[in-house]
Amino acid sequence: MSEAAPATAVTAALLIIGNEILSGRTQDANLAYIAKGCEAIGVRLREVRVVPDMEAEIVAGLNALRARYTYVFTTGGIGPTHDDITAAAIARAFGLAIERNAQAVAVLEAYYPPGQLTEPRLKMSEMPVGASLIDNPVTSAPGFQIGNVFVMAGVPAICKGMFDGLKSRLVGGPLMLSRSISCPLPEGQIAEALAAIQNRYPQVEIGSYPFFRRGVPGTALVLRSPEAALLDEAAEAVRGMVRRLGGEPGESAA
Amino acid sequence: MSEAAPATAVTAALLIIGNEILSGRTQDANLAYIAKGCEAIGVRLREVRVVPDMEAEIVAGLNALRARYTYVFTTGGIGPTHDDITAAAIARAFGLAIERNAQAVAVLEAYYPPGQLTEPRLKMSEMPVGASLIDNPVTSAPGFQIGNVFVMAGVPAICKGMFDGLKSRLVGGPLMLSRSISCPLPEGQIAEALAAIQNRYPQVEIGSYPFFRRGVPGTALVLRSPEAALLDEAAEAVRGMVRRLGGEPGESAA
Repeated sequence: MSEAAPATAVTAALLIIGNEILSGRTQDANLAYIAKGCEAIGVRLREVRVVPDMEAEIVAGLNALRARYTYVFTTGGIGPTHDDITAAAIARAFGLAIERNAQAVAVLEAYYPPGQLTEPRLKMSEMPVGASLIDNPVTSAPGFQIGNVFVMAGVPAICKGMFDGLKSRLVGGPLMLSRSISCPLPEGQIAEALAAIQNRYPQVEIGSYPFFRRGVPGTALVLRSPEAALLDEAAEAVRGMVRRLGGEPGESAA
Repeated sequence: MSEAAPATAVTAALLIIGNEILSGRTQDANLAYIAKGCEAIGVRLREVRVVPDMEAEIVAGLNALRARYTYVFTTGGIGPTHDDITAAAIARAFGLAIERNAQAVAVLEAYYPPGQLTEPRLKMSEMPVGASLIDNPVTSAPGFQIGNVFVMAGVPAICKGMFDGLKSRLVGGPLMLSRSISCPLPEGQIAEALAAIQNRYPQVEIGSYPFFRRGVPGTALVLRSPEAALLDEAAEAVRGMVRRLGGEPGESAA
């Protein structure tokens, strides 16, 4: 259970575009990277959607998310082939015309040897009018920003490069801090005492994640809050609870 | 680009519930498994959403998805601790009361040694009125089905066990078949010819996925359709295209 984020929280959503994720052919590798990157700068990733390569689905998903969250990231569908329809769908969602972005054309011209900037590759310069570029340090073809939406490639190496580059444009809120405590007792033995601590510290988000180590059940307890003093107090209460119930609290990977 | 699924298609959505996915602490491992499992029985996974452990978010996500798709799967939030609010949220979404399911209580009583079926563990028997159980072959605490919604654990081993067990309740549509062709040319060199093939075979979904092998760019082409003859014809057209453009088509992992 988490309390609603404070009014000052800066939020984000991720729209993953691609049939290959929905068919199970490709395991998404961008969500966790973007989530951690957001967390590190005080942006809270609050929702993720995965939609197929269908314009109506992309438009509906994007419009729902961009109205609700401070920032929206999209991954996938910005290459040169017929199934790359993200730029057109995003222009449609914003009600904007699409154009060959002059800066993007220049980037592609500089990257490809003479004669190799084919029409399909030029398609990668097509963006909604008013878009600003997101650098692609791997294969040059840029992503773009329009309004609060950041459009990136799906290939993980390119997506990471783009996200690292655009992060400086994001204005984060209070940093979310966390404490992770490993508890050698199963959830069923600590749940009531843990709920009491959660009730005492409603502004601290306390997550409980069961694990098995060599067949022995234990629980990873993760406490999160932007307020360090409160967080440390709640973490100390959790450690005390674990000891009182007969376990020895340990450090756990956050 | 994919054509709209035929009217007979059986569809599904997945609602992933958990702060730990949105913070990047945990890498989701269930989506791809469920996607492949659906594909294997003729069910098309069409949308995925990830939402935090907040009742209003779970209710809104679930109601949007269950109205739209044949089946909805959820993962996460069915354990014994305070942050496990999925069952209550799903009852709320359906406008149903929640109760201790007698069959679920019996399962838990059989699993835990005398005196160890604590109140928090009994909480795992709470389900919407009318729910039917989904077996948990790992730790006994069952998931449940209510209407077209299947509620599973988030721990991957348990989720897989539950999903494998419930699959027999799903009635699939036509099986989606696929052919994967590895092309040693980059997307930018094949995009126009590929789009022409896509136009010629609008009922075959053709996906194009760039890759690099030892620094050399290539493209994995994935063709999907329930119709084998049409699929083979389109695949042969793609292989012919690759050869015509100077490459040798290979087999590729689907």
